[in-house]
Amino acid sequence: MRNIKLILAYDGTDFHGWQRQQDSRTVQGVLEDALERLTGARPTTMASGRTDAGVHALGQVVQFMTTSAHSLETMIRALNAHLPRDVRVMDAAEVPQSFHPTLDAVSKRYRYVIDNARIGDPFCLRYAWYVGRPLDAERMAAGALHLIGRHDFHSFETNWPNRMSSVRTVLDTKVVRTSRLVSIEVEADGFLYNMVRAIAGTLVMVGSGSREPEWVGDVLRARDRSAAGPTAPPHGLFLLWARYE
Amino acid sequence: MRNIKLILAYDGTDFHGWQRQQDSRTVQGVLEDALERLTGARPTTMASGRTDAGVHALGQVVQFMTTSAHSLETMIRALNAHLPRDVRVMDAAEVPQSFHPTLDAVSKRYRYVIDNARIGDPFCLRYAWYVGRPLDAERMAAGALHLIGRHDFHSFETNWPNRMSSVRTVLDTKVVRTSRLVSIEVEADGFLYNMVRAIAGTLVMVGSGSREPEWVGDVLRARDRSAAGPTAPPHGLFLLWARYE
Repeated sequence: MRNIKLILAYDGTDFHGWQRQQDSRTVQGVLEDALERLTGARPTTMASGRTDAGVHALGQVVQFMTTSAHSLETMIRALNAHLPRDVRVMDAAEVPQSFHPTLDAVSKRYRYVIDNARIGDPFCLRYAWYVGRPLDAERMAAGALHLIGRHDFHSFETNWPNRMSSVRTVLDTKVVRTSRLVSIEVEADGFLYNMVRAIAGTLVMVGSGSREPEWVGDVLRARDRSAAGPTAPPHGLFLLWARYE
Repeated sequence: MRNIKLILAYDGTDFHGWQRQQDSRTVQGVLEDALERLTGARPTTMASGRTDAGVHALGQVVQFMTTSAHSLETMIRALNAHLPRDVRVMDAAEVPQSFHPTLDAVSKRYRYVIDNARIGDPFCLRYAWYVGRPLDAERMAAGALHLIGRHDFHSFETNWPNRMSSVRTVLDTKVVRTSRLVSIEVEADGFLYNMVRAIAGTLVMVGSGSREPEWVGDVLRARDRSAAGPTAPPHGLFLLWARYE
């Protein structure tokens, strides 16, 4: 058996998220269909993390086992021929049998994109959250710095029944404005359910001036979801990459 | 009566083009609906040019007459509140009674966008034509220069029953590569049906090396649609602006 790692990019708009479901179009579903057509067997795939409906990926990491003898180049080409065009296999590599895309991820990085101008950009509807009131990206960057480090991020998670611990380590944050777009990036050793979207909703309150940057630290210490801002919509969120040792 | 000029941006993907149709969603249709809600009367709108299904606009110019006393600022805000989010009114101005958006246009400029890389970008599906074989933008730019000037562009039009003359003046062309995207821009005093798309299909044959740049001049002189390349798909095409005296 060969253990294969794929790098996937997808536009999440027309998918009901990553995870396979009986009657819905999901990224895992169309990928396993394509793998079955290529290899003749239907492998089970695992991802670095499940993305929700509407969430995009530039560098999702996916693993599967196969007895197929195809070269990696052939796999990339054939999978892209079988896949719908809103999912692309960008790269493939053979990895040790022990490789696990979720457990072995040392860190992951997400980007949340906000379309911030007086009039919304009709070309950003699927890829950015439209916020009309002016945002100060420097204030948002200052607020985000309070998240760096090992903390209990309970204030930034939507409750999830089987959660073990809400302690995570945020390794880096970045908030920048590029013309009309404000991008929030968060890198962490792991993410809670809806964590980046709750962070985005919270930072928008700082950027619009209704809260001070220091308030983000207060929210964190409150360990209470109601202390933070709203959960930003899914379509502004992009999984950028997952890093492994 | 006031004569109003609007600047419109729209994502053409989910529209059956500009022109009002009985049972299809069109840009003119949703705009006239919004104007009716704002002014209480349904005006007839005219555009600098009709865009086809799937074609986008960054600066479409639209004109209508109204007795409404609303300020221009209020019009922009209220129309954007009534319009679906894939159409935005970017600006509004009051113009002389004689202003005609089609006849008075001195020139218009279009951009055609090609996604040119080994693997297609899933985020460009609605906004660029995917061409996998490598394109040389400099060869395409050299080919496009043959179009500049006053010529019979019959080789680059899809026949249109009520056409009067296929002589037009191309004022400027530009072909540039920005990372994976190749953009073709054409400015002219007027455009024939599918002209930019036929030019794009022709220049791709030059960019891929199957024809020489000089061949574009031969195609022009042939005055025969079958001499040129194929008509590129609509979704890579953007109306950038229309210029008036």
